[in-house]
Amino acid sequence: MAAFDQCPYSSICLPATRLPRVVVIGGGFGGLELVRRLRRAPVQVVVLDRNNFHKFQPLLYQVAIGAVPPDAIVAPLRKQFRRATNVVFRMAEVQRIAPEERKVYTDIGAVRYDYLVVATGSATNFFRLEGVQRHALGLKEVDEALDIRSWMLQNLEEAAVTCDAAVRQALTSFVVAGGGPTGVELAGALAEFRKYVLPRDYPELPHGEVRITLVEGAERLLTHLPASLSAYARHVLESLGVEVRCGVLLQDYDGHEVRLSDGTRLYARLLVWSAGVRGQAPSGLPAEAIAPNGRLYVDDYLRVRGLERVFAIGDVALLECADYPRGHPMVAPVAIQQGRWLGRALTEQVRSGQWIAPFRYRDKGALATIGRHRAVAVLWGRRWKGPIAWWLWAFVHIFSLIGFQNRIMVFVSWVGHYFSYEKANQVIIRKFIPALRHRHTRAAASVPKEE
Amino acid sequence: MAAFDQCPYSSICLPATRLPRVVVIGGGFGGLELVRRLRRAPVQVVVLDRNNFHKFQPLLYQVAIGAVPPDAIVAPLRKQFRRATNVVFRMAEVQRIAPEERKVYTDIGAVRYDYLVVATGSATNFFRLEGVQRHALGLKEVDEALDIRSWMLQNLEEAAVTCDAAVRQALTSFVVAGGGPTGVELAGALAEFRKYVLPRDYPELPHGEVRITLVEGAERLLTHLPASLSAYARHVLESLGVEVRCGVLLQDYDGHEVRLSDGTRLYARLLVWSAGVRGQAPSGLPAEAIAPNGRLYVDDYLRVRGLERVFAIGDVALLECADYPRGHPMVAPVAIQQGRWLGRALTEQVRSGQWIAPFRYRDKGALATIGRHRAVAVLWGRRWKGPIAWWLWAFVHIFSLIGFQNRIMVFVSWVGHYFSYEKANQVIIRKFIPALRHRHTRAAASVPKEE
Repeated sequence: MAAFDQCPYSSICLPATRLPRVVVIGGGFGGLELVRRLRRAPVQVVVLDRNNFHKFQPLLYQVAIGAVPPDAIVAPLRKQFRRATNVVFRMAEVQRIAPEERKVYTDIGAVRYDYLVVATGSATNFFRLEGVQRHALGLKEVDEALDIRSWMLQNLEEAAVTCDAAVRQALTSFVVAGGGPTGVELAGALAEFRKYVLPRDYPELPHGEVRITLVEGAERLLTHLPASLSAYARHVLESLGVEVRCGVLLQDYDGHEVRLSDGTRLYARLLVWSAGVRGQAPSGLPAEAIAPNGRLYVDDYLRVRGLERVFAIGDVALLECADYPRGHPMVAPVAIQQGRWLGRALTEQVRSGQWIAPFRYRDKGALATIGRHRAVAVLWGRRWKGPIAWWLWAFVHIFSLIGFQNRIMVFVSWVGHYFSYEKANQVIIRKFIPALRHRHTRAAASVPKEE
Repeated sequence: MAAFDQCPYSSICLPATRLPRVVVIGGGFGGLELVRRLRRAPVQVVVLDRNNFHKFQPLLYQVAIGAVPPDAIVAPLRKQFRRATNVVFRMAEVQRIAPEERKVYTDIGAVRYDYLVVATGSATNFFRLEGVQRHALGLKEVDEALDIRSWMLQNLEEAAVTCDAAVRQALTSFVVAGGGPTGVELAGALAEFRKYVLPRDYPELPHGEVRITLVEGAERLLTHLPASLSAYARHVLESLGVEVRCGVLLQDYDGHEVRLSDGTRLYARLLVWSAGVRGQAPSGLPAEAIAPNGRLYVDDYLRVRGLERVFAIGDVALLECADYPRGHPMVAPVAIQQGRWLGRALTEQVRSGQWIAPFRYRDKGALATIGRHRAVAVLWGRRWKGPIAWWLWAFVHIFSLIGFQNRIMVFVSWVGHYFSYEKANQVIIRKFIPALRHRHTRAAASVPKEE
């Protein structure tokens, strides 16, 4: 069918309009909030994302551990924009931005913009540790979470038929690098998995052998929270049997052995790397706009340094201000507030050519869960820990999920675990094959569409 | 870590026992029911399955269409056997059976048996149509269902940026081969997707272009049901806008063009092949035991022809009897009844050396859904169609699911669709890449474990 291979499209087929066009790259927390605010503005909004869904990142670790199904924490982007007649969604991988032409080049063609918003978020930062990059698993994408789940269960199945105790221990040991919320939550969930699920589902494994280690380079966990809460989190993790090693750097990993800066060697077949993120700036932007960690310098109006009509919001934006001299934390609330602000600002710009008051972040607090009935929070100017913080955490997360059905699904899963002390989804839907890892996850973009 | 690469396991590490050992290959409907019946029998049961979960095949098409999450229709096998102290589960791919040694060879080692039960089920039969095998998608496994979902959505996204109407039509056209329950249910679900979801989520697609074709070689759909119900099913599908072509064979497919035996050519980028199944007999069994369609000839006692201690149940077993001269239909109720019978029979064998009365199948009826409020059923000796049959279908399927949480999840999804007329999970969690298809699905077994 030669005719089909020569499909002549070269643009991304947008409806003709006289309105100014706002192109938004990324449908994460920031992008989604921005688009919501632009629904009634006199602009055409074009949303580009390489996935066709928005993901609720804070619960990704629960997918990894098998506590909730992946479908429950994602929401199709087209569904979000359904009632907005001025919004067009295109699933596309951005290749480069050409500010001099005011164009974005993607794998499905180029699109001109009047205003461009970069909301591409962040990616795992391996800090040039090649072995780690090759053998560890990240926890930023839904398919990575599913890979962790598969690989963990595959290792347990292999351990069940392994007689050599040392090998078995490596197969059942987990190292989590990074003592931020993701690392702490994952380590806590793994510890509960070991306590409640392993003895019942894997009676053949001597579960005293199973080691869970959390490695953090700083001197304490959860450095964004007050020291007293960090200490509490560490205490809870240790009482759950997690080995917490602070002030130690992870230096190398070959798929079997983790080397730490204090000389320790840990044997583990699963290393989850959540010890660093970097901004995911698309290529084509001027060098002076890009910070060493990949984020984009923006001014008080979220404009990318040196560019007129290009904005950045969320994790990828680096706004150095008095309160946050090294930029805001890379978390959802910042992205949402920036999206909201920019939605108002662009509407005003288009309508009157004026700027509204510059963006200011209001810190509403932070939450992190550690285990059953154990969480820490800073909310309304107070510190919370223990069961109250845990209920707050559960409440906030259920209500932040998009879609009634997702809320119910997560709620049902949680109620199930709450009473049965177990996770329900220990299934290996797709085996994780280390040799194919890079093909699995990011190959989609580079493989030719037709063959 | 050279030491880890030489792990010396060669058996599959089973607990020592003096009880006779029953090895069951396959944790489908038959295998699961059998193991449940053997929980209190004086035997050691070893269950082998290449997946670590049982799947509820009748709802697989709902995963394909995005109506329920994959996690909701699978149940971890280890969880099923948790309270059965005489049952051991091993995730293993069977390589061959050696009846002369009474051993099963697997990718994780060999296991001796006293009794062997082959419950390996069925696989898609492509009838040596090479093009179809290469380019069509089957619907027998969970990952195939997810591939259909991804591929369908990827094609729709591509169609949204395609200006050539002929190409766009091929991208948005679906051909389903096979007018059995799976084909009918999938075609009906696709038609409802076109009717309720497409206009809202893909306003840029002229949805009059979208064609759904169901091809069946026999003269009518659902040949296992009375002709009046087949006619009703066809009528409902046609009123939903499905082109039904009976008495026509699908001859070839190159990924773009379907060729039918009456000379028709259909252009479609997605062909789902549910037009044939074959028994999935493991290798190593005597040639005279294997029927041309891959099933295993068994006698009234479900013993595989020519072998003493080897049994077969479910889709893979071919029991030619007076009522069913060409064997029982390859459906779940047969497998479940055979598993139940064999559980009782083996218990009696081990206890007293006697045989119970030979297996007889009791036909309790059949159900197939076509669309919202439209289904057909033969139950309690009566024919049902329309809303009553549909409610019966929903009821039976919810209650047949394993696990309280799965029931709730499917129920919540269905209630959601029922009132909103839409499917909730249109997400491409992993892109389907045709070039990698065989690596995705079955490669796991052939890729070396260590690298």
